[in-house]
Amino acid sequence: MNRETTYNFNAGPSALPTVVLERAQQQLLNFEESGMSIMEMSHRGKVYEAVHNAAIERMRKLYNIPSDYEVLFLQGGASLQFSMIPMNFLAEGEKAGYIMTGSWSEKAIKEAKMVGATYEVASTKDNHYKNIPTTFNVEEGTRYVHMTSNNTIFGTQFKTTPDINVPLIADMSSDIMSKPIDVTKFAMIYAGAQKNLGPSGVTVAIIRKDFLATAKTENPTVLQYATHVKNNSLYHTPPTFGIYMLGEVLKWIEEQGGLEAVNQQNEMKAALIYDVIDGSEGFYTGHADKDSRSLMNITFRVADEALEQQFLTEAAEAGFVGLNGHRSVGGCRASAYNAVPVAACQALADFMKAFMAKHK
Amino acid sequence: MNRETTYNFNAGPSALPTVVLERAQQQLLNFEESGMSIMEMSHRGKVYEAVHNAAIERMRKLYNIPSDYEVLFLQGGASLQFSMIPMNFLAEGEKAGYIMTGSWSEKAIKEAKMVGATYEVASTKDNHYKNIPTTFNVEEGTRYVHMTSNNTIFGTQFKTTPDINVPLIADMSSDIMSKPIDVTKFAMIYAGAQKNLGPSGVTVAIIRKDFLATAKTENPTVLQYATHVKNNSLYHTPPTFGIYMLGEVLKWIEEQGGLEAVNQQNEMKAALIYDVIDGSEGFYTGHADKDSRSLMNITFRVADEALEQQFLTEAAEAGFVGLNGHRSVGGCRASAYNAVPVAACQALADFMKAFMAKHK
Repeated sequence: MNRETTYNFNAGPSALPTVVLERAQQQLLNFEESGMSIMEMSHRGKVYEAVHNAAIERMRKLYNIPSDYEVLFLQGGASLQFSMIPMNFLAEGEKAGYIMTGSWSEKAIKEAKMVGATYEVASTKDNHYKNIPTTFNVEEGTRYVHMTSNNTIFGTQFKTTPDINVPLIADMSSDIMSKPIDVTKFAMIYAGAQKNLGPSGVTVAIIRKDFLATAKTENPTVLQYATHVKNNSLYHTPPTFGIYMLGEVLKWIEEQGGLEAVNQQNEMKAALIYDVIDGSEGFYTGHADKDSRSLMNITFRVADEALEQQFLTEAAEAGFVGLNGHRSVGGCRASAYNAVPVAACQALADFMKAFMAKHK
Repeated sequence: MNRETTYNFNAGPSALPTVVLERAQQQLLNFEESGMSIMEMSHRGKVYEAVHNAAIERMRKLYNIPSDYEVLFLQGGASLQFSMIPMNFLAEGEKAGYIMTGSWSEKAIKEAKMVGATYEVASTKDNHYKNIPTTFNVEEGTRYVHMTSNNTIFGTQFKTTPDINVPLIADMSSDIMSKPIDVTKFAMIYAGAQKNLGPSGVTVAIIRKDFLATAKTENPTVLQYATHVKNNSLYHTPPTFGIYMLGEVLKWIEEQGGLEAVNQQNEMKAALIYDVIDGSEGFYTGHADKDSRSLMNITFRVADEALEQQFLTEAAEAGFVGLNGHRSVGGCRASAYNAVPVAACQALADFMKAFMAKHK
């Protein structure tokens, strides 16, 4: 198989822009005439530090991140953040609220419970996580509220930021940098890089300084956000190649016209597939309620269960990769992150129509 | 500059074998005819899982790791291990012993102190960490003893494994896979990958199962070794590209003839430079005592301090990269990890001799 006939709908790690990979390939043995790969350089040398700082600057510019926020590169993915957040911000006698919208919210609250008191601000579990909640019961004295902005497994996504009067922390692992957002509505945003930003192994955290100032200081050094702030994310050796790639992906987003343009593309891409589902008269059924649908992860079933496996098999044969739903829920899922081209979504829409025409 | 005229003596991240980078470059956009980069694949897909498991198998084979040991790929580098080890293995009322041989030992014990009781089994701090201790005072009831097998900053290295009657844990970040070792002498070995194994962002841990079985279970899920054992290091998204590269570096070690052959090369490489120091009649002075000298990090001074900066400047102009000593100690350091070719060490030895001839 070649890249031209492979339609990469992987849920993460997932598609990267071809031009980013081509540039990385060209420089892989000799980065900017340094005589070395970017992977072979000290993280304390000028060449890498310029790459590191440029990536931070690009993130600041694309998201309009005000100067009272820090931008950090960490390791350990969202899974480590699930613990680091309560370890840093949830003290004895305090409580944290969690908005429950899927499996990742469940994992996040589970880790917080190991540290302190938690409660559910809202949950759509009873509706099989088919929708995003619209009312939020924030209790008096809540230290922070945690939300998952996009739910990869169930295919739902917040369309607006909850209007909540306590520090709001968002796991944006699966829709970071997919659209413009108002960063100032959040005390903290974090994301694993491996869906919209680059290869796996890098975690981004954007944290407001006054919120950071309230963090506990008795945690292991490497698990304190303050450590990474003080050292510009160079306290220990960062995943240098991953951060370099992340910077290149951000450059690519700029080249696309920025987040407004990328968002328009994402809306168009998702619509191509949702339109087939909605026009299929029940041959395909979407999992998420329409007003909660994710632009990143399009989850659906082939209504005739016997046909579903055949759909997945034929799709794989036709070059579509990653269409199986998450192993916890089954069904089908097309992840159409930033780097998935319109042409891939068009090809999938066409394939779905052709499959339906054969079997309806 | 090009690779041929660049002599990469970086302390880490550091040189990678050129052939490994060339293979990665060739496959960067289309890994094994999958139509995708290895970076763009699900960590739960067959292609990546084969890469992941092959890397574990190669590590087992090269180190003769018995089946009663687990091999894990983690994130967060040695710095996170400094905390994870006591969090997992040091309980209330227990104590851990640390062998103090340099800055990394100091960082390791500092984090352990945040978790439980510690003491120094041995220390060469009073001798400016110029040597490896030879006597070890292990107290009754010690939970584990921690050592740093090679000290990047001071340029010392254990030549034999301390004969200690409690579980021995070694930070081998800077000499893992540089020579054959008897894994069975250790309860646990860990290492950041970025010196001898691959790019930064991957941590390797090799842990004996009966020692693992004694770990505490009340830690955050992602900070429990048991979590990663249970999930074959796929509990959360691993740094897939880094693990792929690590596997390729291990394959390259095999192609060199295995660890015996690599060790011979490393001895020859270090001797080239140490011989110049020893034959310089005091023009160059080595930091480490001769019997404690590291084959990985060769630390030295130009005895005339006024000349030292000139040495470093001229060396940089001549294509030698990374020769400045660690910012905490100054002086000069040549890191000659596995992937640094003999020719680079020969070139450095020649340069040192020529510089001495001009200025002595």
